[in-house]
Amino acid sequence: MKKKEIYLDNAATTPVDSAVLKKMQPYFNKKYGNSSSIHKAGDSARKGLDEARQQISTFLNCLSEEIYFTGGATESNNWLIYGVVDKFWENGGKNKPHIIISSIEHKAIIEPAKYLEEKNLVEVTILPVNKQGIVELDEVKKAIKKNTILVSVMYANSEIGSIQPIKQIGELIKKTNQEIVFHTDAVQAINYLNCNVKYLNVDALSISGHKIYGPKGVGALYLKKGIPIAPLIRGGGQEHGLRSGTENIPGIVGLGEAINLVSKNNKDNNRIKTLRNKLITGIMKDIPDVQLNGTLEYRLPNNINFSFLGIEGEGILIELSEQGIYVSTGSACASHSLKPSHVLSAIGLSDEESHSSVRFTLGRQTSNNDIDYVLNILIKAVNRLRKISGR
Amino acid sequence: MKKKEIYLDNAATTPVDSAVLKKMQPYFNKKYGNSSSIHKAGDSARKGLDEARQQISTFLNCLSEEIYFTGGATESNNWLIYGVVDKFWENGGKNKPHIIISSIEHKAIIEPAKYLEEKNLVEVTILPVNKQGIVELDEVKKAIKKNTILVSVMYANSEIGSIQPIKQIGELIKKTNQEIVFHTDAVQAINYLNCNVKYLNVDALSISGHKIYGPKGVGALYLKKGIPIAPLIRGGGQEHGLRSGTENIPGIVGLGEAINLVSKNNKDNNRIKTLRNKLITGIMKDIPDVQLNGTLEYRLPNNINFSFLGIEGEGILIELSEQGIYVSTGSACASHSLKPSHVLSAIGLSDEESHSSVRFTLGRQTSNNDIDYVLNILIKAVNRLRKISGR
Repeated sequence: MKKKEIYLDNAATTPVDSAVLKKMQPYFNKKYGNSSSIHKAGDSARKGLDEARQQISTFLNCLSEEIYFTGGATESNNWLIYGVVDKFWENGGKNKPHIIISSIEHKAIIEPAKYLEEKNLVEVTILPVNKQGIVELDEVKKAIKKNTILVSVMYANSEIGSIQPIKQIGELIKKTNQEIVFHTDAVQAINYLNCNVKYLNVDALSISGHKIYGPKGVGALYLKKGIPIAPLIRGGGQEHGLRSGTENIPGIVGLGEAINLVSKNNKDNNRIKTLRNKLITGIMKDIPDVQLNGTLEYRLPNNINFSFLGIEGEGILIELSEQGIYVSTGSACASHSLKPSHVLSAIGLSDEESHSSVRFTLGRQTSNNDIDYVLNILIKAVNRLRKISGR
Repeated sequence: MKKKEIYLDNAATTPVDSAVLKKMQPYFNKKYGNSSSIHKAGDSARKGLDEARQQISTFLNCLSEEIYFTGGATESNNWLIYGVVDKFWENGGKNKPHIIISSIEHKAIIEPAKYLEEKNLVEVTILPVNKQGIVELDEVKKAIKKNTILVSVMYANSEIGSIQPIKQIGELIKKTNQEIVFHTDAVQAINYLNCNVKYLNVDALSISGHKIYGPKGVGALYLKKGIPIAPLIRGGGQEHGLRSGTENIPGIVGLGEAINLVSKNNKDNNRIKTLRNKLITGIMKDIPDVQLNGTLEYRLPNNINFSFLGIEGEGILIELSEQGIYVSTGSACASHSLKPSHVLSAIGLSDEESHSSVRFTLGRQTSNNDIDYVLNILIKAVNRLRKISGR
């Protein structure tokens, strides 16, 4: 009998939905043309490209020509940061511009911002978050300066699931200075939150395929018409000259269909939230010395992040993995590093609390039985590890 | 009955080989983990990643840690140009460095070089080519200066198939200055030429998946250990910190398997060359006023590029497409532009000759019958178009 496997790491990546995969298939070896080609083989590829752009723009409530496909959300985020600053200088900017990001952004925002700061090309303000992991409006207000050209605040955090008041931040920014570009990294939000860009008051928004039951290696950037931005990747002039490279048609078709399915799966979110709450309640009831990191009120319905005080999160992860349960400590991307998660530090956790944290992220495939099973195994694992550590 | 379709645009893109697709499949929804994750779902993704890296390094005769995966060859090329120049300045470079590229490079090399030149960050020499579309060693020799840090010459050209003397250029460069980074864009060469990086004397080499019967949206850059380069895309620190972003495992697995199959398909290259020569001979025999662009001697075995004087290449393309035959004019990427191909201009073609050019690129799927059929249709199409144009 195949061992039970329960995947609770959906914030790291998700399996490709079978309907998405089915839609992608013909584009690998039947409609395989280069969408830049003028002949009919190019046409059928281009149709797939156009439909995906339409699906995404419908979801975001924007124009289809405002969607640019990329190799993933990391590229989308990099491009946004570099591209806006680059264009500022290209347009004859004289004095160093200022950008604002939050302290809990993904590294794909933080690292490009730091890089530009080190090069003396931009001044960066990093917004603090409160204990719940939320950016406060007052902090944004205080941070905006005369030379602010860009604000980037993620919609929902990958580690603690905290949801930012994007709509309100957008209103505030637009009231202060219409010229400021407001970007949100919506990678973790797409599955669960309203991503209507007009509702949100955002000028730019990053999307990833593989976090929404679509393929890896593809993403998109929504860019409001007229937003001044330089390309990151130059060459053949694809994507209106702003993102060169032969379009990844199967991936793009998959991303479009994945977004399309998000709308259809909306009613599943309550089920996921109920299961999520059941696991939280179970952990708090049956395991002593735990703390829930982040807020319950403004939190993605699939996210749980607990510190199991006195033991290493990684120890729990490995014990659970042996039993076929897959969770994470911090974000998967952060696993390249031994430093405590910058997100958990930002909400005030000590290094010890941070290292004892485990993230459980549920998904469409999670069942009620899974939760019972996980709780049972988790209680034993924590008890065993605490016994070993003498706690 | 389904209409006959003959795809002779394999330099623009190729269908994914069924064995490649089969190998990719489990990574979409079975081994779908994030390879940065520590748990077992991460492990099985990582195994796919490691195997692909091994396959590619075996093919190139390099270390597996010298292979970096990207979102495609356009990104690989951009990264190489930006990254080497960026690192030069980061390392405290004082005087403007000098780079050399050829006049027939892909736009993904030319555009980044021009961009850096405009920003005054680098001085660029563009090497001429001779009438055959070949870079002459003497020109390289003349171009190298004391401050040259990078030379990039493509291995084989996508439009006229001309093969560059990479090995000899590499020898010359290394004899002159060991510190110069020598890069080759090998996208069109992989299927047909010896890509042993030690044989070629190259320090860096770009690869694309979709030109070798692998997937779109994935590529790689070989970078010799110790080559000073800055990242283009920053974030989670994947690919030894040099290319961030969740790894596109299905795509990477496909790229590895596609490279693996290239070795196995070597014996097919003679067959393709024979068919290619048959089509060339047929055209020259049966259609007056044509000229073969480029050289026959140093040419990819699958490439044909003819000017059909007096008529537009695009007219021929459309006539053929109506009959299910897919060819191209210039490179597909160039179809975004109405300007004559920069490659054809570089070998001395007039705008008129350039606009009358058609490229036929054969592939593994091309049969002897296809060639007979194409020749027959082509003769009629050219005759008809010439009649219309009154020639």
